Amino acid sequence: MESLLLQINRERLLDTLNVSSSIGTTENGGLNRLALTEEDKTMRDIFIDWLKKEGLDVRVDDFGNIYGRREGKINNAPAVAFGSHLDTQPCGGKYDGILGVLTGLEVIRVLNENNIETNYPLEIVNFTNEEGARFVPPMLGSGAAVGVFDKDYVYSRKDTEGVSFEHSLKEIGYKGEAKNRIRDINYFIELHIEQGPILANNEKSIGIVKGIQGDNWLTVKVTGETNHAGPTPMENRRDALVAAAKMIDKVNGITKEIPGLKTTVGKIAAIPNITNVIPGEVEFSIDIRHENNETRMYAIDKLKEQMSIIALIGDVELTITTDWHSDTVEFSTVVMEAISESAAKWDYSTMEFFSGPGHDAKYMAEIADTGMIFLPSIGGISHNEKELTLDEDIEKGANVLLYTICKLANLQE
Amino acid sequence: MESLLLQINRERLLDTLNVSSSIGTTENGGLNRLALTEEDKTMRDIFIDWLKKEGLDVRVDDFGNIYGRREGKINNAPAVAFGSHLDTQPCGGKYDGILGVLTGLEVIRVLNENNIETNYPLEIVNFTNEEGARFVPPMLGSGAAVGVFDKDYVYSRKDTEGVSFEHSLKEIGYKGEAKNRIRDINYFIELHIEQGPILANNEKSIGIVKGIQGDNWLTVKVTGETNHAGPTPMENRRDALVAAAKMIDKVNGITKEIPGLKTTVGKIAAIPNITNVIPGEVEFSIDIRHENNETRMYAIDKLKEQMSIIALIGDVELTITTDWHSDTVEFSTVVMEAISESAAKWDYSTMEFFSGPGHDAKYMAEIADTGMIFLPSIGGISHNEKELTLDEDIEKGANVLLYTICKLANLQE
Repeated sequence: MESLLLQINRERLLDTLNVSSSIGTTENGGLNRLALTEEDKTMRDIFIDWLKKEGLDVRVDDFGNIYGRREGKINNAPAVAFGSHLDTQPCGGKYDGILGVLTGLEVIRVLNENNIETNYPLEIVNFTNEEGARFVPPMLGSGAAVGVFDKDYVYSRKDTEGVSFEHSLKEIGYKGEAKNRIRDINYFIELHIEQGPILANNEKSIGIVKGIQGDNWLTVKVTGETNHAGPTPMENRRDALVAAAKMIDKVNGITKEIPGLKTTVGKIAAIPNITNVIPGEVEFSIDIRHENNETRMYAIDKLKEQMSIIALIGDVELTITTDWHSDTVEFSTVVMEAISESAAKWDYSTMEFFSGPGHDAKYMAEIADTGMIFLPSIGGISHNEKELTLDEDIEKGANVLLYTICKLANLQE
Repeated sequence: MESLLLQINRERLLDTLNVSSSIGTTENGGLNRLALTEEDKTMRDIFIDWLKKEGLDVRVDDFGNIYGRREGKINNAPAVAFGSHLDTQPCGGKYDGILGVLTGLEVIRVLNENNIETNYPLEIVNFTNEEGARFVPPMLGSGAAVGVFDKDYVYSRKDTEGVSFEHSLKEIGYKGEAKNRIRDINYFIELHIEQGPILANNEKSIGIVKGIQGDNWLTVKVTGETNHAGPTPMENRRDALVAAAKMIDKVNGITKEIPGLKTTVGKIAAIPNITNVIPGEVEFSIDIRHENNETRMYAIDKLKEQMSIIALIGDVELTITTDWHSDTVEFSTVVMEAISESAAKWDYSTMEFFSGPGHDAKYMAEIADTGMIFLPSIGGISHNEKELTLDEDIEKGANVLLYTICKLANLQE
């Protein structure tokens, strides 16, 4: 039966992936392709060549997002869009985001070589600065395209060396026009690696994503008193780091009380950060996620209370600011069903769950029925040079993407 | 009675101190006069002018230590040396170290204007890089002068910008000769601010220092696994910072079990230090002090055991290295008695205790009978722009230094 099904060309897809893996390669075999750098430009140029070879109509918008359009039978109809991002973390992997764009390209190639015309037009997309590793916040390109972020805001974002988003965009020649932004679309589908161990642990091939877990980012500033380590008796200290350590332990501990809650302290800095000086100030970040918005807000309140008590006991001052607040986004059941049916055609095993990390799909959900296909990440490792998704899983994912797109582009009607 | 006693000139001493306070002044009224910088050079040049005006024989050794010698009645006799350091922390105070040098200068001035000749020669000293804030480790100048540090080692120390000690020494014109190093001395006395709250809390004017508490510096490296905060379930994490936080809490907690033990975690760094990435590596410092060497080593062993258990439970790797080991140094009872008797002459209240921080006196104890005079630090604050020692306490300390030096220089014989 299976051999009769139209399928993607595994070798061609992997060859295309290998080209991407050669642009910005790190010593340890990962990728360092930060948004709007020379490496990103090289990748973009090649990507546009590929799109043109497939006869697509290529557009670049004012945020550097790249679109390739393939018309359908119905003129001026809303499109089925798909894609992800080609930028990476500084010590990133070869799969994150990239697979979503390149499997999309493979879908176009299969349709082209089989002369298959869809009812609705198709649009493949590469979004700018999804990682947020060069310009904070992440998902700037997709967020800006749908109007979540203001143009001035996006343009004035600066990297750690003070170079602005707008300057970098011009520098690599990818400042396009506002009229090219993603237009009238009915559906958006993003294929992505899971970046977690759930599929691998459960031996499933295809993740059907229910939505994006809401998350909050907080900055906690603890202020005590800087003093010399030698002479200051323990009982006279106002040690900001000792208090911060107790708080970090609580931030972690609260996840044992609230099922499904995930907390991470990723960043920490002590001032003055000298071995024999008691830290007078410590700042650390909290990333807190739960798909239930009320549960997440309850957890934040509880944490604030617990940290206040620690601050009181440790005689330090506490300031907590919210840097990011994002409620849970639920994906379209129509898209979820299309993915499920496509996987079933191939007898691929599936599993439904929420995504912890944010993705461009989150912002696309603002303008279209949206869904995501997850592929297994070996060991759940990502944002890491050791990131790995097996060739056979990539092939399965691309086949599911092909059928999902065709179904949503109304081929069967 | 008191008016008949020879005493130091308070106004002149405070004027001299004000000159020092104007070189490298920070916005908040502290000092930023890192070793071998332009500010340090300016201070050194002025200091040498002062010494020459008092007719002293000035020498600079190959580590930039500055000596001023005043001959005594007995030719070629061993000297009574005194002094401290003129360098500061980046956000340091106006008193730390500086008082030890400038009260010494005031003693010379008083002796000169009263035509008092001591039996033994006197030597006033300014040691290079006591703070260790620019070049690690601290007390490089005094340690090198007595042979604790190798010349190559000292010369190759680099600041955070990669500039070497030797280069900086030449740059400011203070690379003198090895033959000028501190020579034959019988006694060394260092006046210094306490940098702790003991004298102030006990309402005492003069601290008679029993010695320098032994201390160890450790570096703890915790290695877990870098992973994305969003998708990685809590139970799959190997979070280096959560484990490190629990360890820091233990490092603090152990001081409640062992009386007199002081521990400080002053430095911490997480890698990659990104809000939504689980830290794969955390490094932090431990400074641990106790005057009883066995107790200190027992505490270190116990801490290592407790941290190993945390590492085991948190599924992280642990590496602990010793960067610094220094046993307790006990000061000379002859010097302590001389200080005690000098204070008694003026009815100044005194208190005996060990110093937590290291001082140049620690290395001088290798070659001479050594002692220290501590003055109260308001609030125990030091290594901080808010550092303060009251004028009246400075006056008292200088008077005690005057009599201690005279007594040890055998004036009464």
